[in-house]
Amino acid sequence: MAFAVTREHNEFLYQQVINLVRQMREQGTLQPGEKLPSLRSLAAKLSVSVPTVKQGYEELERLGEIEARPKSGYYLALQLKPAAAPRRAKLASKAIAVKKQSLIEQVYDAIHTPGVVPLGIANPVAAYSSEKMLARTMRRVMSQAGQSAINYGPMDGFAPLKRQLALRYLDMGLTIDPADLVITNGAQEALAIALQCVAGPGDIIAVESPCYFGILELIESLGMMAFEIPLCPDDGVWLDDLEQVFKTQKIAAGIFSTAISNPLGCNMPEQNRRALVELMEHYQVPLIEDDVYSDLYFSEHRAIPAQAYSRKRTVITCSSFSKTCAPGYRVGWMIAPRYIEQAKRIKRALSCSSSLINQWTLSEFIASGDYDRNMKQLRRTLLLHRDRMMAIVKQSFPQNTRISCPQGGGVLWIELPPDGDATLLFHQALTHKISIAPGAIFSPSNKYARCFRISYGLAWSEQVEQSIKKLGELAQQQYT
Amino acid sequence: MAFAVTREHNEFLYQQVINLVRQMREQGTLQPGEKLPSLRSLAAKLSVSVPTVKQGYEELERLGEIEARPKSGYYLALQLKPAAAPRRAKLASKAIAVKKQSLIEQVYDAIHTPGVVPLGIANPVAAYSSEKMLARTMRRVMSQAGQSAINYGPMDGFAPLKRQLALRYLDMGLTIDPADLVITNGAQEALAIALQCVAGPGDIIAVESPCYFGILELIESLGMMAFEIPLCPDDGVWLDDLEQVFKTQKIAAGIFSTAISNPLGCNMPEQNRRALVELMEHYQVPLIEDDVYSDLYFSEHRAIPAQAYSRKRTVITCSSFSKTCAPGYRVGWMIAPRYIEQAKRIKRALSCSSSLINQWTLSEFIASGDYDRNMKQLRRTLLLHRDRMMAIVKQSFPQNTRISCPQGGGVLWIELPPDGDATLLFHQALTHKISIAPGAIFSPSNKYARCFRISYGLAWSEQVEQSIKKLGELAQQQYT
Repeated sequence: MAFAVTREHNEFLYQQVINLVRQMREQGTLQPGEKLPSLRSLAAKLSVSVPTVKQGYEELERLGEIEARPKSGYYLALQLKPAAAPRRAKLASKAIAVKKQSLIEQVYDAIHTPGVVPLGIANPVAAYSSEKMLARTMRRVMSQAGQSAINYGPMDGFAPLKRQLALRYLDMGLTIDPADLVITNGAQEALAIALQCVAGPGDIIAVESPCYFGILELIESLGMMAFEIPLCPDDGVWLDDLEQVFKTQKIAAGIFSTAISNPLGCNMPEQNRRALVELMEHYQVPLIEDDVYSDLYFSEHRAIPAQAYSRKRTVITCSSFSKTCAPGYRVGWMIAPRYIEQAKRIKRALSCSSSLINQWTLSEFIASGDYDRNMKQLRRTLLLHRDRMMAIVKQSFPQNTRISCPQGGGVLWIELPPDGDATLLFHQALTHKISIAPGAIFSPSNKYARCFRISYGLAWSEQVEQSIKKLGELAQQQYT
Repeated sequence: MAFAVTREHNEFLYQQVINLVRQMREQGTLQPGEKLPSLRSLAAKLSVSVPTVKQGYEELERLGEIEARPKSGYYLALQLKPAAAPRRAKLASKAIAVKKQSLIEQVYDAIHTPGVVPLGIANPVAAYSSEKMLARTMRRVMSQAGQSAINYGPMDGFAPLKRQLALRYLDMGLTIDPADLVITNGAQEALAIALQCVAGPGDIIAVESPCYFGILELIESLGMMAFEIPLCPDDGVWLDDLEQVFKTQKIAAGIFSTAISNPLGCNMPEQNRRALVELMEHYQVPLIEDDVYSDLYFSEHRAIPAQAYSRKRTVITCSSFSKTCAPGYRVGWMIAPRYIEQAKRIKRALSCSSSLINQWTLSEFIASGDYDRNMKQLRRTLLLHRDRMMAIVKQSFPQNTRISCPQGGGVLWIELPPDGDATLLFHQALTHKISIAPGAIFSPSNKYARCFRISYGLAWSEQVEQSIKKLGELAQQQYT
């Protein structure tokens, strides 16, 4: 058997030890229950240090894939039980007015309470922070820009940033006219503008279910109605359900994650994305594409945005830097080929331009290659954290707990066994200084009372591990 | 006669020469047509340098207050004709749906066209830039904040900034609970949220006339109607007109400049502000207070916000840093005692939080005293520029041109004599690479076709002077 450990990424050398063990398991070289090579022998074979091998073994132990036996060594775990995915939700029978959810406020308050472990917020950037790189870039921009750094930028965005974004899309195989781009205050404002471009008060918006609560709040705030379309944990929104709704309801627009969803973490396959666009264009319903997590993929390649398959120019792509490098900069964008004039007007009316210094910094951040370098590390870190967190959840939570297996992004969606109460868990966890996002806020019809979302997009620590175990403990208590 | 030149502000030493000459004129020591003291003799008397006196005399000459006669010296000008203020507009008979104004887009495009003198944009910060101080502060914040600098801030704003704002209001005699404050993306977003707190589509909003076009666009964007209430060039909105409208119309809210208005530059006296609040609370109409220019006063003191006179907590104060120090940071705020829960929800739905690093920097900028130091210089510079610009306009424009005499802020409002066409002037000026803001965009009923706004809030230059003269020339041509 040939070993090859490349030294491309020093930081993750031990990851390759992990990969090797997994490869041995898959190829049958190592059977469940068998002893692994000793630290010293594997280190010699791989020409790496003993601590590196140890780090790899410890990580595998954490993930539940191997077991340490005192004074004996490491053994391949007997079984790897895949967690069941959350169940398919029933298709709603009607659109629902989103009700004011004070629970959302409690979730936000919890996140910002000092000392609370913020498992409730989806902030993947915290897993591998771009802060130093961005600070360096911003310092450089301030020196170069002089007085321009504090001036108003153009209403539709800083032209060099728009060019950089267009270049990125070109790399994905999508030709964007920068004139069809508007820079916004994060993706949330992009979604707000997109909705106002294509719908008005009282109109029905198709949303995925479970749905990011910020979108539900937005629909409520604009006086619109939400029609929930169930998500498949693997493939994104169920297209058959969506078509059924189109046949019976007047839908003004649909907002869907066209790649990685929040909170489910599923990654819509390319053929589904293409079919989604075709379906929506056939029924003449504009598609608002929520693309914020698409750069955080665990698969081979980034998804091509749905925008690329649009023939009628009725897809509006909304995205931002908030999940990839700079949540606090509040810079997002929208691509709205058919609606660009309305989009520019609404943006101007809602908040004039967006922060110029922040746009300028992000523009340089992309141009220098720092963005891509940073993303590569962030994705690797998130994947590692995902595996760690799934392993702990599997070990700590009640039997028959269902867990999503995110194919990107930074959050895990957990469904407690029947009779579980995730809102109760939210309140209980808070007394232990742990925040989670209860499922109730992900549906206007309170479909997900047993579910909750936790984030693996944070700096890993003993405290984080203990918090997940504590959550499991609290959940167990609901069944005793 | 006693002379006293204090050296408190070196930069404006020559300003005191100006004050002295004006004092001599007012006291009758110097009569129109009489010769001024020679440079040398006045310099000796004042113990300042000859160039300082010369600078003062040149400024007075620029302002049209004295005349230089070759080989003879400087003489007090024969007459100082005060410019007539713009006339009182007629009260509208009904509310008007704001129509999409592509002219606004042309105005913005003009401002951002390279090489164009941006007289059309109200950006007073350009007159005395805070850029270096802010850059220094931001660098310090980035060093201190570390990873927090790129994180999401709380949805309602960065707590230390809210505290600093509350302290500032306390200095003005107004006690604010920081919990009643929401930080927004500039005052524009504050106004957008305020309107959505108190009114819905189809509702009628009372606005001042002429009115900042951003407010008109916002009303249009939200599907509301505008009812124009004429402004008095001295005292702000005409209260008798407003009451008449309240008696006959259902008005959902009023947006008014409660201190310095844009474009008229009038400063509402305290008794009017108090009466405005009483009137609106009597008729149970919420007052949205546009306070963005209030720190740019030329009078003795800053105006106390209308918020201070509210008994029913139905005043919403909207303001920002865009007109005082950092337009491109996009940080504003609102104080909404009665509507705070809605305001927080709408802010969250529209754009989540605002840029944390920018908020943090501004918070430090206030705390260090830099904000106040900067404002002092900015106000002095703006006053000087106002006088310069008024003088050139008086000299260059057709007879019977009316000019506002701004009591604060950074813009001049000019009314051409009958048959003048300011939209034509806008297009003509653009061919000479000069941007102005034509009156047509300041009223949904196109009341101000003969008026336009120009900014004295810019870095003064020969090019600026020439541009104003060129505008005068172009205006003259409309009458020949």
